Amino acid sequence: MGIVVQKYGGSSVADAAGIKRVAQRIVATKRAGHEVVVVVSAMGDSTDDLIELAKEVSPLPQDRELDMLLTAGERISMALVAMAIANSGHEARSFTGSQAGVITDNAHGKAKIIDVTPGRIEKALGQGYIAIVAGFQGVSQDSKDVTTLGRGGSDTTAVALAAALNADVCEIFTDVDGVFTADPRIVPTARQLPKVSYEEMLELAACGAKILHLRCVEYARRYNIPIHVRSSFSAREGSWINSKVDEMEQAIISGVAHDRSEAKVTVVGVPDKVGEAARIFETLSEAEINLDMIVQNISAASTGRTDISFTLPRTDGQTAMTALSRLKGEVGYEQLLYDDGIGKVSLVGAGMRSHPGISAKFFAALAGAGVNIEMISTSEIRISVIVEEGMVDNAVAAAHDAFDLAGDEIEAVVYGGTGR
Amino acid sequence: MGIVVQKYGGSSVADAAGIKRVAQRIVATKRAGHEVVVVVSAMGDSTDDLIELAKEVSPLPQDRELDMLLTAGERISMALVAMAIANSGHEARSFTGSQAGVITDNAHGKAKIIDVTPGRIEKALGQGYIAIVAGFQGVSQDSKDVTTLGRGGSDTTAVALAAALNADVCEIFTDVDGVFTADPRIVPTARQLPKVSYEEMLELAACGAKILHLRCVEYARRYNIPIHVRSSFSAREGSWINSKVDEMEQAIISGVAHDRSEAKVTVVGVPDKVGEAARIFETLSEAEINLDMIVQNISAASTGRTDISFTLPRTDGQTAMTALSRLKGEVGYEQLLYDDGIGKVSLVGAGMRSHPGISAKFFAALAGAGVNIEMISTSEIRISVIVEEGMVDNAVAAAHDAFDLAGDEIEAVVYGGTGR
Repeated sequence: MGIVVQKYGGSSVADAAGIKRVAQRIVATKRAGHEVVVVVSAMGDSTDDLIELAKEVSPLPQDRELDMLLTAGERISMALVAMAIANSGHEARSFTGSQAGVITDNAHGKAKIIDVTPGRIEKALGQGYIAIVAGFQGVSQDSKDVTTLGRGGSDTTAVALAAALNADVCEIFTDVDGVFTADPRIVPTARQLPKVSYEEMLELAACGAKILHLRCVEYARRYNIPIHVRSSFSAREGSWINSKVDEMEQAIISGVAHDRSEAKVTVVGVPDKVGEAARIFETLSEAEINLDMIVQNISAASTGRTDISFTLPRTDGQTAMTALSRLKGEVGYEQLLYDDGIGKVSLVGAGMRSHPGISAKFFAALAGAGVNIEMISTSEIRISVIVEEGMVDNAVAAAHDAFDLAGDEIEAVVYGGTGR
Repeated sequence: MGIVVQKYGGSSVADAAGIKRVAQRIVATKRAGHEVVVVVSAMGDSTDDLIELAKEVSPLPQDRELDMLLTAGERISMALVAMAIANSGHEARSFTGSQAGVITDNAHGKAKIIDVTPGRIEKALGQGYIAIVAGFQGVSQDSKDVTTLGRGGSDTTAVALAAALNADVCEIFTDVDGVFTADPRIVPTARQLPKVSYEEMLELAACGAKILHLRCVEYARRYNIPIHVRSSFSAREGSWINSKVDEMEQAIISGVAHDRSEAKVTVVGVPDKVGEAARIFETLSEAEINLDMIVQNISAASTGRTDISFTLPRTDGQTAMTALSRLKGEVGYEQLLYDDGIGKVSLVGAGMRSHPGISAKFFAALAGAGVNIEMISTSEIRISVIVEEGMVDNAVAAAHDAFDLAGDEIEAVVYGGTGR
């Protein structure tokens, strides 16, 4: 049989009991005849504890040393998982990101994987061992320094290893049962999706569904690695993410995602001249701010001025406002507005392509629920709207209802984030 | 100026405040014009906490994985020390044992250093950085696995790096002021020794003085690295350990050491035939037990039998007794006795060689204090006796007094262990 890569998040290995449960699961997979490679995150909140320690020592820790510090977290969890497995009669060998051949660039704290050379993992598998690999970490190609991959890093490690090892599947174990049509905390009738295509999952991830990180899905799509998202607390089948979603089974709409992490900035009264808008976005780009939605109103003929609105992560709000306020003299806009009381609601579905009228139905549902739309953006398989933050729940429920996404039974699970 | 290697133990970097204090000290050394390499232990009790975690997961953790786990401890402390240094305007780079080129054999948990290839450390020093190195750890030559050096490991790392880098001195920072004529908790008038020769320090370390581990002193003697043992809590001069101790300054007796970690085993009624005693010690050797003192009584002519007594670490007591009890049928001894209520008191001094009558004076002092001697062993510069455990303090004080080792002032410090 082939190779199975499994990834367990921090909540699955939060304590000794969790580690033992994970070990049993790994051993069961091995006994079923697979070669098993396991990627683990740091235990529970231990990464936060290490960050707290760093802050006690230094207000602005160096990136290189912060990576050295944080990688201790996975080192601890992977060694403990290997020990727990040994009690079952199977033997495991743990490997750091560096030992597992996870080669990255030198961008400490948000390194990108350049290459994976898993020679030691292959050797360990060949000797009959289960291989345990530290997620979230690698070694830089140039300086041979320890790096971390940033948010979603352990999922990305798992998918990258699965690709390099030509694994049959990458199983992402988390604290929910899979991918849902909406957050079950908001929509209790939300239904688990048995299959999701890469492109739908990419849109869902980009629109606030925290179950998988964008990077990990992108990596899986590029190397065509099937991902199986499932619960580490139950044995039931989760959600499969791959390229082959049967056309016949394809729902028009896969789900409704929402995101409360963005803020809206409006630059009021920008002179409608060539290059003024460009100057604004150039400035934001120089400040390394990733914009999401952008809307420019038509210029009012009477004033020759226009308003430009865009959304961005709230965490970048201060940086953006500071950079733009410095630009006031140069560009000569009238006013700068900031609103972090917004939310984004997105409808995602590959079937949208062949079914016109989806937007009309979506907007009608929102209107019927009394939700005012502030901004709109679309892709081929997605419609996103910005609404008042307090209306996000109503909007999600109304859209979910309008497109008949509800399942037959109520799922008693929580749709939470996967950490990193 | 030359290279200074400094080693800070777990108690010196136990919390953020300690780490900042250590960082200031390191920066001061750098500002004084030295190139600085720092070896750190894990924070406070963090190694014990990790061992506790391992025990929760597995009753008998695999050595390889235990080493992987424990090395997370120094990884955390070294990154934090590097961060703390950066706040002072100097920059530091932390390195794992593997990155620092500490090459060991494959004996997990008690690896021996085979070679030190500190290329990355030299490069970092050349670029003006302070180098922080994880103590207690290395990488195995054959399997490239992470190893730990066992007790006294961080001190040994420091001395080995000092040798490989051709450093001027290896400074061991600890929680006491230096090497004393006796444990000041037992003898309040004990005096700090400004200079101690390698051979005296070896005897003191072997006889229970916990300030430096035997291995570290052996390494320093072999490569002739001066060690400066000093307090991380004060700026005062500590004790120097090197080969050149001025003959004129050489005291007859350097100090009185004691050790409460041993037990005594007596094999009663061993047939006095060729090979019987050999069989006993062969068995103990196969069980990998290090014996300390051995005494064999003269054979009683009437019975043709003799008694053999030896001391060993209490932690090996059970293993030894089990191995020897299996031997009863084969060797035909009469009885096996075990006594862990003993202590060892040792008088150490290079001047002993040229001064006869030291033992007589020592034994008279013990008799005067009402201390009964159970076993005796001597080397060229040491006399050790085994006494009842409850009499150890009396014996130490009596010997200290008999040889006029007291200082002028009372040192208000505690003579404790250095951890690892």
